[in-house]
Amino acid sequence: MALINHQIRLAARPVGLPTAANWQHTTEPVAQPDDGGVLVKTLALSLDPAMRGWMNEGKSYIAPVGLGEVMRAGGVGLVVASKNPKFAVGDHVSAGLGVQEYLLIPADQIRRSGLVAVDLRLGSLTQWLNVLGMPGMTGYFGLMDVGQPKAGETLVVSGAAGAVGQTVGQLAKIKGCRVVGIAGGQAKCDWVVNTLGFDACIDYKNSSVKDGLKQHCPDGVDIYFDNVGGEILDTVLTRINRKARIVICGAISQYNATTAVQGPKNYLSLLVNRARMEGIVVFDYADRYPLAVAEMAGYLKDGRMTSREDVVEGLSHFPTALTQLFTGANFGKLVLKVADH
Amino acid sequence: MALINHQIRLAARPVGLPTAANWQHTTEPVAQPDDGGVLVKTLALSLDPAMRGWMNEGKSYIAPVGLGEVMRAGGVGLVVASKNPKFAVGDHVSAGLGVQEYLLIPADQIRRSGLVAVDLRLGSLTQWLNVLGMPGMTGYFGLMDVGQPKAGETLVVSGAAGAVGQTVGQLAKIKGCRVVGIAGGQAKCDWVVNTLGFDACIDYKNSSVKDGLKQHCPDGVDIYFDNVGGEILDTVLTRINRKARIVICGAISQYNATTAVQGPKNYLSLLVNRARMEGIVVFDYADRYPLAVAEMAGYLKDGRMTSREDVVEGLSHFPTALTQLFTGANFGKLVLKVADH
Repeated sequence: MALINHQIRLAARPVGLPTAANWQHTTEPVAQPDDGGVLVKTLALSLDPAMRGWMNEGKSYIAPVGLGEVMRAGGVGLVVASKNPKFAVGDHVSAGLGVQEYLLIPADQIRRSGLVAVDLRLGSLTQWLNVLGMPGMTGYFGLMDVGQPKAGETLVVSGAAGAVGQTVGQLAKIKGCRVVGIAGGQAKCDWVVNTLGFDACIDYKNSSVKDGLKQHCPDGVDIYFDNVGGEILDTVLTRINRKARIVICGAISQYNATTAVQGPKNYLSLLVNRARMEGIVVFDYADRYPLAVAEMAGYLKDGRMTSREDVVEGLSHFPTALTQLFTGANFGKLVLKVADH
Repeated sequence: MALINHQIRLAARPVGLPTAANWQHTTEPVAQPDDGGVLVKTLALSLDPAMRGWMNEGKSYIAPVGLGEVMRAGGVGLVVASKNPKFAVGDHVSAGLGVQEYLLIPADQIRRSGLVAVDLRLGSLTQWLNVLGMPGMTGYFGLMDVGQPKAGETLVVSGAAGAVGQTVGQLAKIKGCRVVGIAGGQAKCDWVVNTLGFDACIDYKNSSVKDGLKQHCPDGVDIYFDNVGGEILDTVLTRINRKARIVICGAISQYNATTAVQGPKNYLSLLVNRARMEGIVVFDYADRYPLAVAEMAGYLKDGRMTSREDVVEGLSHFPTALTQLFTGANFGKLVLKVADH
């Protein structure tokens, strides 16, 4: 039986928010693995703000997706054929699967694909795309290595209900910080406070971030974990403490800008406060992922951490699902479910 | 004989570049010191970009100068009367003298005034306002503690012929870096390369900073010591290396802005490059000034460091001299000479 692989390829580079015209839906027959190779069936894909950057031309921390190439995506899947002794048919794995139903990984690409086994005793399949996956690793190392939280400090995180934000805030609470989230809408704010246990959450869509920071960060801000950039970054800069750390993880408010990115006009607050603004790219910490996974799986198990994923079903919905990230329509880590098993 | 103290006071807060209308010239009789107090005669004052910030209202790393108060200024002077056993008449000293001919320091203000003896065997009076003074300390600790230079790295410094820039560049050369300056005009660039020994200097007034960085920093930029902000900061951000350090020391291009400060629109280069932007305020390092002075006095003595001061004479010229900083008319550390002895 010849399996058919449905794929979504980058057809054109977007200007502003991606549209249907940026994508091409293709099919290919699925081949069998060579000696040492593995065939993975995609079960679920991680939809991330970073994808928008990968669609642009130009130098970044990773090469852009080429026109005509299958769109890059991390995902979890099932080994359906294997000629590699480390992976057996039926194993659950994580890898850079791409936006497609199957990924054939030749022997010489195993390492590059990032193929690793995932242990469903540590977390669910979607949690392996969230707190135990790239967003979780980003939150963990961005907070611990760049943010360097100390008990008693105040941390603010934007995109608080998102994949990275939920990890950062919960972890900072565990480390003894006062944690204030910024999220869009009352429902997200309520969840962040009531379920995740943040001390407060500011609804940037319906209230003043400036007033919220004044109210909820009476002792100023020691760590700001920024996922959004733009006006919110500028507002937080006016409230930072001496020796504050600003972790630049992303700037989702700017990714679809068709004019120049809005630079932080209050950046001289870094000078006045001897503060630091520093970028983080998760791949730098790959050697330490297992340690972070083990620690956070422990928190999931003992109930000190939880997670929320927003699951959209069907590969063909990828283009519309992706745009949800930029309007804030998703609630929790956005996952595209491609197959049940 | 009653001495008369000529003073320059802040009369009104400036909008944009300060003008004569912002200043008030006053005179007062000079009183004699109380028990433990000291009377200092101003010989020379340090004119610094930071002064522009002190003229503004609002929270910063130091309180603003109040309306009607003598303008704040660091300076070197001569002890002309003393009832303090630590300071003898005829001693040369450094302190926050203010823009005036005499400062009477009561016993209970000695510590707060920062009064310290200066040793003219280590450097000239004007060098004590430059490489051995606040700008030198700013350059030293900004480079060594925040920039953390390693031999073989490339450092770029803006305001290269200025007080902080000349210290930073020469010190980075001594520490084994490739050093590229950015300065305004051919004369400054020639001096920076030929006299200070920088590897190259980009004339931002007459050539493209972008092209200059491409040419002179073929291996990218590891440390950028920024005194200017604005477009130059944005251009350097496009050339930084992984794990680069950007020392935010000042933003002289923005201090007289009457609209919002121009934020660095390329700040996401920090993310892509896992780089850091960090502010420095020299006062944090006061405990270590003597160590830095000793080290740099050694370099002055053995000829590995030199310095250049641009001396304007006469207290009454303070208002016009100050504006030179913002047009770049000064060449070297700007000093206002108030008295010969």
